[in-house]
Amino acid sequence: MIFIRGAAVLTMESPGVLYENGEILIEGQYITHVGPAGSASPPNDIDRIIDARGMLALPGLVNCHTHGAMTLLRSYADDLPLQRWLEEKIWPVEERLDPEDIYWGTMLCCLEMIRSGTTSFADMYFHMDQAARAVEKAGLRASLSRGMIGLSTGAGDALEESRHFIGEWHGAADGRITTMLGPHAPYTCPPDFLRKVMDMAAEVQVGIHIHLAETGKEVEDIRRQYGKRPVALMDELGLFAFPVLAAHCVHLDEEEINILAEKKVGVAHNPESNMKLASGIAPVTRLLEAGVLVGLGTDGPASNNNLDMMEEMRSAALLQKVATMDPVALPAFTALSMATVNGARVLGLHDVGLLKPGYKADIILINLHRPHLYPRHDLVAHLVYAAQSADVETVIVDGRVVMEKRQVLTVDEEEVYRQVSRRAERLAGRK
Amino acid sequence: MIFIRGAAVLTMESPGVLYENGEILIEGQYITHVGPAGSASPPNDIDRIIDARGMLALPGLVNCHTHGAMTLLRSYADDLPLQRWLEEKIWPVEERLDPEDIYWGTMLCCLEMIRSGTTSFADMYFHMDQAARAVEKAGLRASLSRGMIGLSTGAGDALEESRHFIGEWHGAADGRITTMLGPHAPYTCPPDFLRKVMDMAAEVQVGIHIHLAETGKEVEDIRRQYGKRPVALMDELGLFAFPVLAAHCVHLDEEEINILAEKKVGVAHNPESNMKLASGIAPVTRLLEAGVLVGLGTDGPASNNNLDMMEEMRSAALLQKVATMDPVALPAFTALSMATVNGARVLGLHDVGLLKPGYKADIILINLHRPHLYPRHDLVAHLVYAAQSADVETVIVDGRVVMEKRQVLTVDEEEVYRQVSRRAERLAGRK
Ligand SMILES: [Zn+2]
Ligand SMILES: [Zn+2]
Repeated sequence: MIFIRGAAVLTMESPGVLYENGEILIEGQYITHVGPAGSASPPNDIDRIIDARGMLALPGLVNCHTHGAMTLLRSYADDLPLQRWLEEKIWPVEERLDPEDIYWGTMLCCLEMIRSGTTSFADMYFHMDQAARAVEKAGLRASLSRGMIGLSTGAGDALEESRHFIGEWHGAADGRITTMLGPHAPYTCPPDFLRKVMDMAAEVQVGIHIHLAETGKEVEDIRRQYGKRPVALMDELGLFAFPVLAAHCVHLDEEEINILAEKKVGVAHNPESNMKLASGIAPVTRLLEAGVLVGLGTDGPASNNNLDMMEEMRSAALLQKVATMDPVALPAFTALSMATVNGARVLGLHDVGLLKPGYKADIILINLHRPHLYPRHDLVAHLVYAAQSADVETVIVDGRVVMEKRQVLTVDEEEVYRQVSRRAERLAGRK
Repeated sequence: MIFIRGAAVLTMESPGVLYENGEILIEGQYITHVGPAGSASPPNDIDRIIDARGMLALPGLVNCHTHGAMTLLRSYADDLPLQRWLEEKIWPVEERLDPEDIYWGTMLCCLEMIRSGTTSFADMYFHMDQAARAVEKAGLRASLSRGMIGLSTGAGDALEESRHFIGEWHGAADGRITTMLGPHAPYTCPPDFLRKVMDMAAEVQVGIHIHLAETGKEVEDIRRQYGKRPVALMDELGLFAFPVLAAHCVHLDEEEINILAEKKVGVAHNPESNMKLASGIAPVTRLLEAGVLVGLGTDGPASNNNLDMMEEMRSAALLQKVATMDPVALPAFTALSMATVNGARVLGLHDVGLLKPGYKADIILINLHRPHLYPRHDLVAHLVYAAQSADVETVIVDGRVVMEKRQVLTVDEEEVYRQVSRRAERLAGRK
């Protein structure tokens, strides 16, 4: 049992619920009490008290779309045209990745996430049993998908591998690990393959994580080939009968926006990746107006180049304002909701993302004793427009402290740095 | 005499000059040697050796446009339409600012800048003698301008105050402080007033810091009133015969871009402020192609809401990529040049912004031992796309260490926090 006291508490239940001096009680994996100072009568068997004076407590951040092990390719190739970036740089190196690379690359991802206040994430890559091992060890919560290229000769194997992975890992690590099926995208997974994916989704009862409508080229190619735009095509195929996590959704028409809303598709908006790769600007304001559930993601660290959700919140808010030429667009609390409770729902987690009794105890403490967080006019605006991820002081996932006062307790940082440095040299052909 | 050794050194002279294991010698205010390990024969009278293994040394960052004391209004009003934001929130509070508020507000600005690796900045506000006192004490380098509203009844006084301020402070603090005249903008300073400003600029021999072409409304209003667009109008008035620091330059036609290039106007690009206030996206790629000198700024912390140049570099690069739909636009080294040597030139500082003998010793050390900075494929891409300001470990300005291992040596942080907290409560009418 952990008792946090003295913190300002932002429950994220509504913009108003901020206790200036609040307290939180954690029992096992769950939050059992949140309120102003003195509102709890904490039982005697408290294991530890966290003195959080000068801190702001809020739900841990949720990164709805990444490819974690691509930390190994961080800053390996930048400022290139998309096809050259993929064909000459990213794909050749990915072919050299072995299972242990995935373990250590995902471990670096987890370490970076913990240090930046992310407690849950959705990951799509390969050798996912290795990714799962890293997540389990690091103590994070994750929705993991084995990425599948339906056009490749190994598509059938990838599907069987997915089935095996889901059977082994879905619900593992005390429920911190969940799984989805990961067909890469409409342009790499033709309808026949997607039908097999849907059959399996029905059989194993998991959701589907897919890239969707990321670039203008994708929309054109799909329309040329199938006579429909990507979201409309997926709808026609019946994909949205399943819980779907759709990454990007940059290029949408009004009909598609309505489909995403009606079919309750969860969208992972990745503003920095979309900017960096010049994919375009997702119509997030329209999506939210239409009632679409939108979370935030960083995408992989080869196209971002970090996994920093504090930054991603800010970029999401600023980008919508300038894209709509409306300074009121995507206000701070909305950005923060996307990065917490709405993101959790995109991952299919309905007891994550709020500080509320009955919710999983995924909590971060922000150290407000920073020049950029003075004076204290508005802590929500501070979080979205001024804070940085190094302000995260303490991180709790599933009721367990995984970072305390910037010391990560679950991962041997030095070992991670040694491993990824050595592996990156090999992958880049420098050694 | 200070000798820095063991650092990776990015001189910013050209993309190539990165010594993996370099050394820097500082004598007084100046850099006297930069090279690979062992290239110097350091004299015997070295005062101190900085062991910078695991660090990256680069020139201190230059923030080309802010209103420093507005830290007091950070997060005081956000997500509002521009006119309501100004008229109902910002201006009423600004009327209550007294000289001591400006001192402490600017001190908080300086503290935040030091902690985020900014060593030089251009500031436009009022009670600038107080701002200068803060800059002197904090140990930063700054170009300070008394902001003047030509339309106000106090315009004549503001001009005389500027003359007095320039006489007292230009070249002060061992030359760290320089000054400019600060007519606010074309729409607040009519031609008659700008002529007086130019007369004074000729007399006192300083440059001119002005907001220019920030919003579409400004362009429309100026065109309606004077039959010309703002940059063209300023050119016609002869403003560009003086060294001019033009903030924003968001709304430009091709003719105006050519004017800015020909007349060697220095542009301060403020991507996050332009996004947050929905001012628009400056045509930075076109400006650079045309040969315009472009630096980066944060604008005031009421519209950003921090003074974080690491973030501003990233936003500048990402925003140009998506605005031009070209992932090659504004590559990392260009963004970094804008934030260092080009920014210094926008401030009229021609011996600042490179690590090169004869240049002022404004140097920052980045701690690379961070998860988001592993592995080390490309340190320039890391800086622009992955780093955060908390990675700045040590800051040297004018040959003096002002922050060492995240300890600020020139400012009493706790006193600043007490002062700005108390003053902010008063200004917001909460006390
Ligand atoms: Zn992706
Ligand atoms: Zn300004």
